[in-house]
Amino acid sequence: MLSQSDYQSLIEAEISHLAPKKHPDSLYEPIRYTLSGGGKRLRPVLVLSVCEAFGGVAANAMNQALALEMFHNFTLLHDDVMDKADMRRGRVTVHRRWDDRTAILSGDAMLTLASQQMMEKCDEDLIGPVLRLFNDTAMKIYEGQQLDLDFENRMDVTVEEYLEMIRLKTSVLLGCACALGAIMARADRQDVEAFYRYGEALGLAFQLQDDLLDTFGDPIVFGKEIGGDIANDKKTWLLIKSLSDDTTGVVRQEILHPSETAEKIDRVKQVYLALGLPEKCRSLIDLYVEKAIAELNSVKLSHPARDFFVQLADRTRTRTH
Amino acid sequence: MLSQSDYQSLIEAEISHLAPKKHPDSLYEPIRYTLSGGGKRLRPVLVLSVCEAFGGVAANAMNQALALEMFHNFTLLHDDVMDKADMRRGRVTVHRRWDDRTAILSGDAMLTLASQQMMEKCDEDLIGPVLRLFNDTAMKIYEGQQLDLDFENRMDVTVEEYLEMIRLKTSVLLGCACALGAIMARADRQDVEAFYRYGEALGLAFQLQDDLLDTFGDPIVFGKEIGGDIANDKKTWLLIKSLSDDTTGVVRQEILHPSETAEKIDRVKQVYLALGLPEKCRSLIDLYVEKAIAELNSVKLSHPARDFFVQLADRTRTRTH
Repeated sequence: MLSQSDYQSLIEAEISHLAPKKHPDSLYEPIRYTLSGGGKRLRPVLVLSVCEAFGGVAANAMNQALALEMFHNFTLLHDDVMDKADMRRGRVTVHRRWDDRTAILSGDAMLTLASQQMMEKCDEDLIGPVLRLFNDTAMKIYEGQQLDLDFENRMDVTVEEYLEMIRLKTSVLLGCACALGAIMARADRQDVEAFYRYGEALGLAFQLQDDLLDTFGDPIVFGKEIGGDIANDKKTWLLIKSLSDDTTGVVRQEILHPSETAEKIDRVKQVYLALGLPEKCRSLIDLYVEKAIAELNSVKLSHPARDFFVQLADRTRTRTH
Repeated sequence: MLSQSDYQSLIEAEISHLAPKKHPDSLYEPIRYTLSGGGKRLRPVLVLSVCEAFGGVAANAMNQALALEMFHNFTLLHDDVMDKADMRRGRVTVHRRWDDRTAILSGDAMLTLASQQMMEKCDEDLIGPVLRLFNDTAMKIYEGQQLDLDFENRMDVTVEEYLEMIRLKTSVLLGCACALGAIMARADRQDVEAFYRYGEALGLAFQLQDDLLDTFGDPIVFGKEIGGDIANDKKTWLLIKSLSDDTTGVVRQEILHPSETAEKIDRVKQVYLALGLPEKCRSLIDLYVEKAIAELNSVKLSHPARDFFVQLADRTRTRTH
């Protein structure tokens, strides 16, 4: 097993070769731009590390790891068009730098490139299982994104609905990444499934921590403005919970008749604190981290491999950016 | 061999079951709406008929035929967003009936559904060849669409560039449909390739006839307003050819300083007629139809099968809608 940052470096070294330099450049340049935007490369790191945990060689799962990163970046690209987002990872988004049409078409191409990359140097007998997992996961992610969009117009979203939405939109892709690594190492079916559940629980913890950091993070460490979710009435766990628990009606009022942005963020934040929501959210994150770690118990892993995945899960709750 | 309309009926009977009735409906309803819009179903008809021409059973290639129709409808859906089109096949487009976000996300889902459908009931050893052909074709179609968009801002597009653009944007999908039918019937490699070229030539003839009908068709038979391409400065074979052949500069002037729409259409049409472009275009169509038919000579086909594909190609040049 290598370290997380070593796996990340392996990915980073390959990713620049991923987007073909083909004609027309107007189609392929936005793809290269998107892929060069950095990020944690968490999904491909999971593919490679799980593959090695089962005795496989990272290089043999590299194409599938890259395919998943390509797919992930395609979803971000199209999400940015749908959300009319201006910035992504400190850079102007594709649809702002070029236009909506370019972002839509380059995204489509990235989805097909991901599918191609998924089959690249894949044993013929694994193509079926790999692509079925990949396509099923993709469908869930679209369903999650659609639910997220639907939530914008609703004030009665429940915590259960929210958790199901982030499971679909975010977690299943981490589950898929883990399962893919296991499949490429030809692990047993129950090990593949256990690691899928590990990734899924990890993803839920990861997303809830993201929600928490957006409101209570350190703006300098977090790397973006604090309170964006509140300002945009984003239906996060915190907002949904406060809508149901807050008897003062402040949060509801700030959605329907908002104060000036800074004041709105501050007022809603005070409600979150008064209701003890940061602690409650942290407890929920702990629960998912423990669930993830518990999944590892059913799998026979070397000590370094087990440590790697325990630490990865554990860092989810302590991460500050 | 059945008739073209019988194959079309087979497709039509299956297509309504294609889009899953799953949650959330806001994702799946626009997909059902898109698929129920009718159309010639030419691509799936080609899959089924070529499969039967090689002794296969249409039912065994049905999933791949439907997958290709799903893919084709996905490209139309996203193209309509990019072109800001209001109508498609006599109905309001998805992004107008819902919104851009819905059209983008439902389209993404259709691309993945197409990929899933392509693998459905496909022998494991054919999944690789089928998906490689499908993905390669998809990439060419995006390249063609991007070239088409790029042409909007150019006055110096050559006829060769235009033909390459429509080959990528339109023809390769007909080539893919034919090749897919042959692969599903386990035809020899050279037969698969010959039918790919047949479909490609057919597609070029088909698109040129489409260009011709948009300007010189009968509005009642054609089913839409005549002259839309001229009104929108669409870089068709007619426009590109007239830009290079017209010494009066009328066409160029109508692009840069257009008259009122009806007059513009009439003036440009007069130039096309004066230059004899309808006849020249028809000669080019004849050439591609003959090329398509010539490809059939290298393939061992039954008489009914050969007649089917000869007539299909022949109807391209005589069709009025």
